[in-house]
Amino acid sequence: MLYFIGLGLGDAKDITVKGLEIVKQCSRVYLEAYTSILTVGKDALEDYYGRELILADRDMVEQEADEILKGADVSDVAFLVVGDPFGATTHSDLVLRAVNAGIQYRVIHNASIMNAVGCCGLQLYNFGETVSIVFWTDTWRPESFYDKIKKNRDLGMHTLCLLDIKVKEQSMENLMRGRKIYEPPRFMTVSQAAEQLLEIVQNRRERGDDLAISEETICVGLARVGAEDQVILAGTLRQLASCDLGGPLHSMIVTGHLHPLEVDMLQIGCPGRNPCIKYSYQDG
Amino acid sequence: MLYFIGLGLGDAKDITVKGLEIVKQCSRVYLEAYTSILTVGKDALEDYYGRELILADRDMVEQEADEILKGADVSDVAFLVVGDPFGATTHSDLVLRAVNAGIQYRVIHNASIMNAVGCCGLQLYNFGETVSIVFWTDTWRPESFYDKIKKNRDLGMHTLCLLDIKVKEQSMENLMRGRKIYEPPRFMTVSQAAEQLLEIVQNRRERGDDLAISEETICVGLARVGAEDQVILAGTLRQLASCDLGGPLHSMIVTGHLHPLEVDMLQIGCPGRNPCIKYSYQDG
Repeated sequence: MLYFIGLGLGDAKDITVKGLEIVKQCSRVYLEAYTSILTVGKDALEDYYGRELILADRDMVEQEADEILKGADVSDVAFLVVGDPFGATTHSDLVLRAVNAGIQYRVIHNASIMNAVGCCGLQLYNFGETVSIVFWTDTWRPESFYDKIKKNRDLGMHTLCLLDIKVKEQSMENLMRGRKIYEPPRFMTVSQAAEQLLEIVQNRRERGDDLAISEETICVGLARVGAEDQVILAGTLRQLASCDLGGPLHSMIVTGHLHPLEVDMLQIGCPGRNPCIKYSYQDG
Repeated sequence: MLYFIGLGLGDAKDITVKGLEIVKQCSRVYLEAYTSILTVGKDALEDYYGRELILADRDMVEQEADEILKGADVSDVAFLVVGDPFGATTHSDLVLRAVNAGIQYRVIHNASIMNAVGCCGLQLYNFGETVSIVFWTDTWRPESFYDKIKKNRDLGMHTLCLLDIKVKEQSMENLMRGRKIYEPPRFMTVSQAAEQLLEIVQNRRERGDDLAISEETICVGLARVGAEDQVILAGTLRQLASCDLGGPLHSMIVTGHLHPLEVDMLQIGCPGRNPCIKYSYQDG
């Protein structure tokens, strides 16, 4: 059996009791290490589980999937994923490979940012399509996520923005020379995401577009959701561009139509909310 | 401290390790019993936790919230919710009451249908607004959810349909006479939801509306997601209207634009998928 086990969002103890029991009994345990991270690292997880974990980076999952699946028809193998196992496309790929190899699989679900984001007080029912915001480079500055946010806002829906993670990234030079030397991991902050969005707003204004978002649109910054030191800040897009929410992971919400109960929740805030950025009623 | 603890979706062991530790240490533990259910009941949870649970129905949470919050400023009280604590509006209400009473709170997240639904192979990113489908009566047959599904489909998005739960429902006669006699709990099945949707499709066709959904639209029925005996079925809306997925809880997805990887996943199916309903490519 191949078990896909969600680890939740905070630390080692956010695994479910069922998930922990399975981890302890499997013959091999892989830790997916490229779509997200916990606030604790591999060592802390190994200490807590009392067993060795094999780090599975993107190359391994995509190119050496057979290695992961080896023997899973006769023994138990676990594949651990931060959050819930069905956030990222690549795990569907691993499921399909398992099924095609005649290997049974089972999913042990857990919280992911896709549902835990509800803790900020915005109703999950009122979210439209989720978007990803990627790090811009000098030559690649995609704006497509803006159009999706616009569509959601036109329907009154909130938009969860998942922010870019760069793990095992090669510099252009190292890539060209085929050197497997990797840059330090990078995690987009709420401030960086807000700045990119502000630039698009400015671009669209100069073009004379009908603006779906302005500097005064109420957004919510979230950092380390589910961890002891989570921070949630509501403010205008402009305010969020100059906030510092600390270490990764960050996410951002662009609000749509706000229900009075949602406004109340954004104002009183979740635990750890920094009261220095005030919620403003002047949202357009 | 008031702890909101998600129980996940399956049985007693789907609580997180952190959640279980807190349950064991709190002075009182409430079990929210009106927005969802586990496949195991209160007794099984009490046995597993080794402590008494106080059932909190809707009346209690809405009218006796002070009772729940009593002493939570000086001791620890837990409020257990099936799935994740932030699916339903009323918990925002309890959060606000706690904060206004100067009581700190913390959330222990878990899987909910809002993210676990990804196990069927449809990408969570591609879901639009979630809708609720309520039991129709002879005189009350709301169709508004159809229009939301239409908006999502127009954007190519999938729609998660949460199906009605009636717990502690009074008959009209008992309600009028003020008798607190309750009907047995009712849970809408995928088949019932599909039938209501088919009736709307027929109504709209007779009116000459532009149809967003037809009898041949690919839908996915899900039952007991996260439990050992979960069932996931993909088929046309017409096929789902005559399927039997067994006991509660059920949910349904009306698909939007399907990515090839999503089609692959729907075809091979999740564990427990009944192969008798085949995926059809003839979706409009």
